[in-house]
Amino acid sequence: MKTVILIGAQGKMGQAALSGLKQHRVITASRSGDSCDFQVDITDKDSIKQLFKNVGDFDAVVNTVGHCEYAPFQTMTDDQWHTTIQSKLIGQINVVKVGIDYIKDSGSFTLISGILNVKPIPQAIADATTSGAIDTFVKCVANELPRGIRINVVNPTVLEEAWDIYGEMMPGFQPVPGQLVGKAFERSVDGFITGQVLFVDA
Amino acid sequence: MKTVILIGAQGKMGQAALSGLKQHRVITASRSGDSCDFQVDITDKDSIKQLFKNVGDFDAVVNTVGHCEYAPFQTMTDDQWHTTIQSKLIGQINVVKVGIDYIKDSGSFTLISGILNVKPIPQAIADATTSGAIDTFVKCVANELPRGIRINVVNPTVLEEAWDIYGEMMPGFQPVPGQLVGKAFERSVDGFITGQVLFVDA
Repeated sequence: MKTVILIGAQGKMGQAALSGLKQHRVITASRSGDSCDFQVDITDKDSIKQLFKNVGDFDAVVNTVGHCEYAPFQTMTDDQWHTTIQSKLIGQINVVKVGIDYIKDSGSFTLISGILNVKPIPQAIADATTSGAIDTFVKCVANELPRGIRINVVNPTVLEEAWDIYGEMMPGFQPVPGQLVGKAFERSVDGFITGQVLFVDA
Repeated sequence: MKTVILIGAQGKMGQAALSGLKQHRVITASRSGDSCDFQVDITDKDSIKQLFKNVGDFDAVVNTVGHCEYAPFQTMTDDQWHTTIQSKLIGQINVVKVGIDYIKDSGSFTLISGILNVKPIPQAIADATTSGAIDTFVKCVANELPRGIRINVVNPTVLEEAWDIYGEMMPGFQPVPGQLVGKAFERSVDGFITGQVLFVDA
């Protein structure tokens, strides 16, 4: 049994991840902190540091959050780009950078991207661009992590559980059950792979 | 003959691009403006807008600049990430966003990334991550450009002309002549392809 910190536990992606982590001791965190063990804001390095200090020993960090703004490219504002980059890209990089100082030997990080970098749709250019950045970051930074620490990223298509929200903007996409996406998180946390993009698509 | 704006004309990559644009009227620009027709700072949207206004009619924009900071992941500072993202990622996005309002129908943008997102080396995590972001951006945003405007990105390995600077940090890489990289820029500007990552590697 590993101690796993799950960031974004209350979201639909967090619940999907949770379904793959049942064998472990899962410590939950989210921005609001509601119904979670801890509060954390991944855009704030001090907040991340405080989370890891408060938890103590842990084997894995699973991050399922990264806020994206949606708009056509020509009308997306500088602020919308900035917000998306600060959360989905820099926020996740922060989790790894800060986490290296606290995670156990042979621990693992699992980040989140999303299928829109390989299946583009209207309004999602910032989501796609930062997903491409995170997929690349994970593939490359895996070579630099010390003490046997691993890193992977789950790149899922839309969840069945979120189809009522996103379905309209994603014609021709086949949603997948959260439990299948949970398997990818499980494979990252319990396997020995590193530097991998774990696509979950139908 | 097309009118092509070449940003970063005085750099080694700019000279490589220039070798592929000999059939065209090339208008040069760079941050310093030295030996160029115009001065431009791609991290500043007003500066980009002023360049396009000053040039008047043009068919293509070729950007060969994007500043990257180099350091091991664990010691790379927030400022280094910020500087790299603002130039190589946001700067290039700005060139396209502003340029759409000025470029002719069926014009083209050609951006620059670099091979380190698929062949990672130490110290280059910010370069790799932003290259992955730009490659993704180009593949996705191509679907959104109006008026038959195209976009591609050239993703080259190290240039022979820059081997004395980068060779030591890139063991096992085979540099390519700038003229070969120039062909990729030519293929982007003179072809009909769009949304492509044009790898030039040996």
